Amino acid sequence: MLISLASGYGDFAVPAVALEAAVQSLQGLAGPLPVSEAAGAPELRAALAARYRQRGAAQVRAEHVIITPGTKAALFAVFSEVLRPGGANEVLLPTPNWFGFGELVRRAGGQLRELPLRPADDYTLAPATLRQALRPETRLLLLTNPNNPTGRRYTAAEWAALLGVTGDFPGLLVLSDEIYEGIVFDDDPAAPYAPAPTLLAQPDPHGQHVVVSGFSKSLALAGWGLGLVVAPPALAARLAERQFALAGAVPAPSQAAALAATGHAEAIGAALCRQLQPNRELLLAGLRALPGQPDFAAPAGTYYIFADFSRLLAPSLPPLAASKALTAELAAAGVLAVDGGTCGAPGFLRLSYAVAETDLREALRRLGQFVAARHRTIKLD
Amino acid sequence: MLISLASGYGDFAVPAVALEAAVQSLQGLAGPLPVSEAAGAPELRAALAARYRQRGAAQVRAEHVIITPGTKAALFAVFSEVLRPGGANEVLLPTPNWFGFGELVRRAGGQLRELPLRPADDYTLAPATLRQALRPETRLLLLTNPNNPTGRRYTAAEWAALLGVTGDFPGLLVLSDEIYEGIVFDDDPAAPYAPAPTLLAQPDPHGQHVVVSGFSKSLALAGWGLGLVVAPPALAARLAERQFALAGAVPAPSQAAALAATGHAEAIGAALCRQLQPNRELLLAGLRALPGQPDFAAPAGTYYIFADFSRLLAPSLPPLAASKALTAELAAAGVLAVDGGTCGAPGFLRLSYAVAETDLREALRRLGQFVAARHRTIKLD
Repeated sequence: MLISLASGYGDFAVPAVALEAAVQSLQGLAGPLPVSEAAGAPELRAALAARYRQRGAAQVRAEHVIITPGTKAALFAVFSEVLRPGGANEVLLPTPNWFGFGELVRRAGGQLRELPLRPADDYTLAPATLRQALRPETRLLLLTNPNNPTGRRYTAAEWAALLGVTGDFPGLLVLSDEIYEGIVFDDDPAAPYAPAPTLLAQPDPHGQHVVVSGFSKSLALAGWGLGLVVAPPALAARLAERQFALAGAVPAPSQAAALAATGHAEAIGAALCRQLQPNRELLLAGLRALPGQPDFAAPAGTYYIFADFSRLLAPSLPPLAASKALTAELAAAGVLAVDGGTCGAPGFLRLSYAVAETDLREALRRLGQFVAARHRTIKLD
Repeated sequence: MLISLASGYGDFAVPAVALEAAVQSLQGLAGPLPVSEAAGAPELRAALAARYRQRGAAQVRAEHVIITPGTKAALFAVFSEVLRPGGANEVLLPTPNWFGFGELVRRAGGQLRELPLRPADDYTLAPATLRQALRPETRLLLLTNPNNPTGRRYTAAEWAALLGVTGDFPGLLVLSDEIYEGIVFDDDPAAPYAPAPTLLAQPDPHGQHVVVSGFSKSLALAGWGLGLVVAPPALAARLAERQFALAGAVPAPSQAAALAATGHAEAIGAALCRQLQPNRELLLAGLRALPGQPDFAAPAGTYYIFADFSRLLAPSLPPLAASKALTAELAAAGVLAVDGGTCGAPGFLRLSYAVAETDLREALRRLGQFVAARHRTIKLD
């Protein structure tokens, strides 16, 4: 029986307050289901704006927040509104990064350009590197924070340094995908599990900063079809018009669940992190004990470990093909992982620990056997 | 207090079976909300396919049905997949028709071309007229059946005649928006309130036929974020891929409501029609009694009457501006209606009778005063 460490979703129970709110929105309903404006229920938009203000984003108002039918929909809406076919339509994506961006950008009429970062530098994006990479056709710098798949988190100081560069390019937008914002593991006992620093807390004199987030990871509301964009006023207005024209409001039960969860966001995030902590330590220890010890950083955020198995790649194949083959062979050995080649890092595997502990233990056992066998094979070659 | 006869939604209560199913999908849920594949839950797709087969569409299988987050989303997905910027990207739209299509087509990179039909012909689309209107760049013929705003319904015989033309253009798709399919008023006592004939029941040797529908009108599930496409296999597969890349599955409570409502579709539609019938007669009688008697047809479907008030237009203005002004002046007199100018028919008003009876009576009283005053003004000019 195949064990999947490849899913992007944990198997977290729906937070009780959210489930209760969704049921309440339906029970005893006499007329039609209430329909909010397309951009979202005013009280939900206000609650999200208030939460961002608590996190240091003083300028965020309800009208800057758009509720979308899922986080992919939020990303596609932003890409579609800001990328101009034949004009500035390039998205600069530091990698490793999430494998889904390429298709979203392509279908919105844009071009994705990767900017590879090095594990040896802890995936740091140096301001000078960023400046060199920006071109006139670059419309959007796209970051994930915490990063999927590496778990790397940009600190407030790093944000400030990077925005010192992007501020010199007023035609550029900076889009931070912060869907894992609440899945963070700090050593600071004063503020354990504090959310990752949001881009919105940084000064934005040119109105360049856009945040996309969702409810499926940090608030355990996977499957509720809920995403959000926070954008400067003009872009937010265009996104609201777009959603009215092409879609409509997210259904009331999902918005009710989102409102309740937003009111308890810190508690829900902290509970998830506490729940994840033992598995996190189990997977970190298991990887350290593997034959050949793959390289990886203990990530600050997300529920993934992104580990370097490139020593196991078949040298006769090109890197992407070899990475795909390695992932397929591991699957044949009973463990499904995300091929790092799809994230811009062939030879790496993204392993989720948001799974049942017994599954994780068995997956580690199989991974150990697989790696040991590959090492023997490679030595014999 | 303004009375709106302009809304596209009735104030129908959620069908009890659907509400119950949605609550059941949530109550006592221990783990995460179940997530279906992006194209929709297999049992819902199968139930919809079975219903189309019952209606004479023998070839429809579950995999041809894609569940989308709303009906606008369904239309936008089809337009985006089939219109080719720089290639065949024209949508031919017989008018009057729904005002929202223009924006959907434009944002998908297409061009809308109107084919005006005449009220004097009962809005008939003659096969010869259609043949003459088709051009190499026409990728899609777009019909609504029953038509919004006129309520005109294409019979099976009319479908057959029109498809005799479109079958000669194998690069053309025929898209029938059938969202009002269950809101029909027949004189046939043997089959009162039988759904409108679906395009899918017609032979489709070249795989050209696409149907979009939803749950918000004929199944009283407004606000649940539910639409659907039925497409030939290759297009259905592309739509499923698209939805996986850009969106995701409609949330489980909405899909549960949709499944329950689909199982009771005929009963729900008939109940809605019976509920609408007195208001329908009230509005028809009220319009006939108006000074100057506006022209209108007693429509076979939808809960609108589309009536000709063009004798009230200010002759000094261009038709579209005069139509907009007339609608604005009626709103100032307390009745909100849809300006026929936005539907391709300046001087007409779309009046919904899916409102409370007391509101409809008061709206008719105001409309009577407004029309009488305009007639006096016009005579005095």
